[in-house]
Amino acid sequence: MRVSVLFSGGKDSSLSALLMEPFFEIELVTCSFGMLPNGELAAQTAKELRFPHRVLNLEQEILEKAYGKIMNDGFPRSAINYIHEKAVETLATDPAVKIIADGTRRDDRVPVLSISQVRSIEDRLGVNYICPLKGYGKKTLNVLIGRYLQIEEGPSESIQKADYETELREFIRQRHGTEKVMELFPAHIQSHVLSRKQLV
Amino acid sequence: MRVSVLFSGGKDSSLSALLMEPFFEIELVTCSFGMLPNGELAAQTAKELRFPHRVLNLEQEILEKAYGKIMNDGFPRSAINYIHEKAVETLATDPAVKIIADGTRRDDRVPVLSISQVRSIEDRLGVNYICPLKGYGKKTLNVLIGRYLQIEEGPSESIQKADYETELREFIRQRHGTEKVMELFPAHIQSHVLSRKQLV
Repeated sequence: MRVSVLFSGGKDSSLSALLMEPFFEIELVTCSFGMLPNGELAAQTAKELRFPHRVLNLEQEILEKAYGKIMNDGFPRSAINYIHEKAVETLATDPAVKIIADGTRRDDRVPVLSISQVRSIEDRLGVNYICPLKGYGKKTLNVLIGRYLQIEEGPSESIQKADYETELREFIRQRHGTEKVMELFPAHIQSHVLSRKQLV
Repeated sequence: MRVSVLFSGGKDSSLSALLMEPFFEIELVTCSFGMLPNGELAAQTAKELRFPHRVLNLEQEILEKAYGKIMNDGFPRSAINYIHEKAVETLATDPAVKIIADGTRRDDRVPVLSISQVRSIEDRLGVNYICPLKGYGKKTLNVLIGRYLQIEEGPSESIQKADYETELREFIRQRHGTEKVMELFPAHIQSHVLSRKQLV
């Protein structure tokens, strides 16, 4: 049973793949608008994790609409959620894709699909959608991440990560400059996975 | 890292244990009011699954209060949820227990702890609580269950299972007879795990 895991190179999507590995055939999929070398960056991390990987190009129109949302809202939540929903839908239209997974945690606020969005995607597009971390709280996840993954952490503007946020930031930077990016995106700690830890 | 999995001998708690097995040290715990041989029944299933198992006796007062709820409501939902919450709390007060897991699915309606109940238990009692199946929909779970578990299914009154419902039914049967049980508990298909499937 093959699962296509939406993969940013971050610790949550990486851990999702690791937790499913004993039970599913794993494929990592990185969605990109082609604005930044997100695909190549994620491919390198996927190689370190020893999973097959591919890049899925998203329509430019999705990024334009997300841009409209963030400029209207003044903060990124609904824009990021919108890109995530469209990424799942785009992946779900691939006839070879039967199960989609992502790194959503129990305590995540963004990007999160609501249960009605999930059911709508499953019913309309004939896929199953899994969030392997959805039943886990922060403390247990931190222990698992610390045990299985080598990561680097830092402020969100300095860490290279292949998530939706990086391309949306770049899109806004090109149109409005770095200050506008700093204004719209609250600074937070990002992480990027380097490799699997060697288990003793 | 040891996880205590609330275990009824049903497919959901069994699959929870299997999905965590590669990453945690598993202990199965069956809660019982001692009205029926639930502990022995679950111990037999646990042995077939090759996990360590123990029985945790719950206070009679919990059953009395659950009885009050079901008689008042006319249906079992809040009574079963109440027993489940008290079972998690009772297990959490064991100083050796650090992580508690159960078989709650994404689409379950009962027994389900709300996110605020979960956070309250984690904060008050210093445990972490995991629902490994929480991010999985019905179709994917059915495939996993079919692949890993040998089960028997039948109407809820004929299948031997060591969950909270069986003892609450027995408590009501002793006081009011079988007809009252049939009236309060909607008939549904139950399942009981026989063993692990031998993987080829």
